[in-house]
Amino acid sequence: MTTNTLLTHIHQKVPLTEADNSLILPYFTPKLLRRRQYLLQEGAICTHLSFVAKGLVKAFNIDEKGIEHISLFGSEGWWISDFGSFVNAVPGMLNIDAIEDTELLMISRENYEELLQKIPKMERYFRILYQNSLVTKDKRLISSITDSAEEKYLGFANNFPQIVQRLPQNLIASYLGLAPETISRIRKRQAK
Amino acid sequence: MTTNTLLTHIHQKVPLTEADNSLILPYFTPKLLRRRQYLLQEGAICTHLSFVAKGLVKAFNIDEKGIEHISLFGSEGWWISDFGSFVNAVPGMLNIDAIEDTELLMISRENYEELLQKIPKMERYFRILYQNSLVTKDKRLISSITDSAEEKYLGFANNFPQIVQRLPQNLIASYLGLAPETISRIRKRQAK
Repeated sequence: MTTNTLLTHIHQKVPLTEADNSLILPYFTPKLLRRRQYLLQEGAICTHLSFVAKGLVKAFNIDEKGIEHISLFGSEGWWISDFGSFVNAVPGMLNIDAIEDTELLMISRENYEELLQKIPKMERYFRILYQNSLVTKDKRLISSITDSAEEKYLGFANNFPQIVQRLPQNLIASYLGLAPETISRIRKRQAK
Repeated sequence: MTTNTLLTHIHQKVPLTEADNSLILPYFTPKLLRRRQYLLQEGAICTHLSFVAKGLVKAFNIDEKGIEHISLFGSEGWWISDFGSFVNAVPGMLNIDAIEDTELLMISRENYEELLQKIPKMERYFRILYQNSLVTKDKRLISSITDSAEEKYLGFANNFPQIVQRLPQNLIASYLGLAPETISRIRKRQAK
């Protein structure tokens, strides 16, 4: 089941044969995270990319005042990591933990490099994935600068309909850089 | 000469043979931009990725008050585009113009897709390029939130030694989201 989610996700970007499937899967290891369990902590080297097959995780850092700033959510069909730490094998700045019980498929840096070398379709898959991710990041940066609080919330709800109802509003607030009361006020206004 | 810069840049990430070089180059078209000439204007669809072989360009948007916000510089060895507009073939939000006389090598969306399909090494090249770009964007986002003005300027000068001396300080200020006087003050302090 878990592996089907991954293969389906890849297949949407790059058509795979049954033979491809059999080649790809051995590179991945399943992992279960219980709610509130950590996948990664600040200062550690992120050694794996993790595909979320089921569940919901968040990546965040903690500022000097102890306040959590969420930079990323990951639910079904998303990849999560401290990407800079993974790519350059240096200690990371992110914490990642589970908001719900979560099923991951993880690939180590060594396996990732080998997978890309051996299976050109996976080069193509990750090129498309990163291409889309760059576009999303640009949009988010522009939204963070130019959008009103209401536009930020509605943009988030629109882009991530599959998770907005599963997230407590203080986590959405942290991700959007808004006060929880602002989210609450916008939601009430929308409900009318 | 111009094409050598591109091939060298690709070769640093993905070793190329002479045969590869001959396959790759026909996909690109050279273009000269005079200082202050526009490559792209807001509202147009970005139809090409442009490799800067020589010179210096900037990408920016203009806010409601008419103020220019620089999101990107491109000098020798960098790619420049309105990437979201290019990838999704939708009208873009960026303007791009030349700060110095500039030599570009441009590839159209159709040629880009064909190049990636036909030459797997180019999939790999762009996957690595985008991977690094994601890491850089994350760092810049974190720096914009957590760094002091002085740390922002020194980080920029450190990351882009090849362009910091070629840029008027008001352009660096716009890119870093600082007042030009702040840059001037930091530079004076550094000079001591």
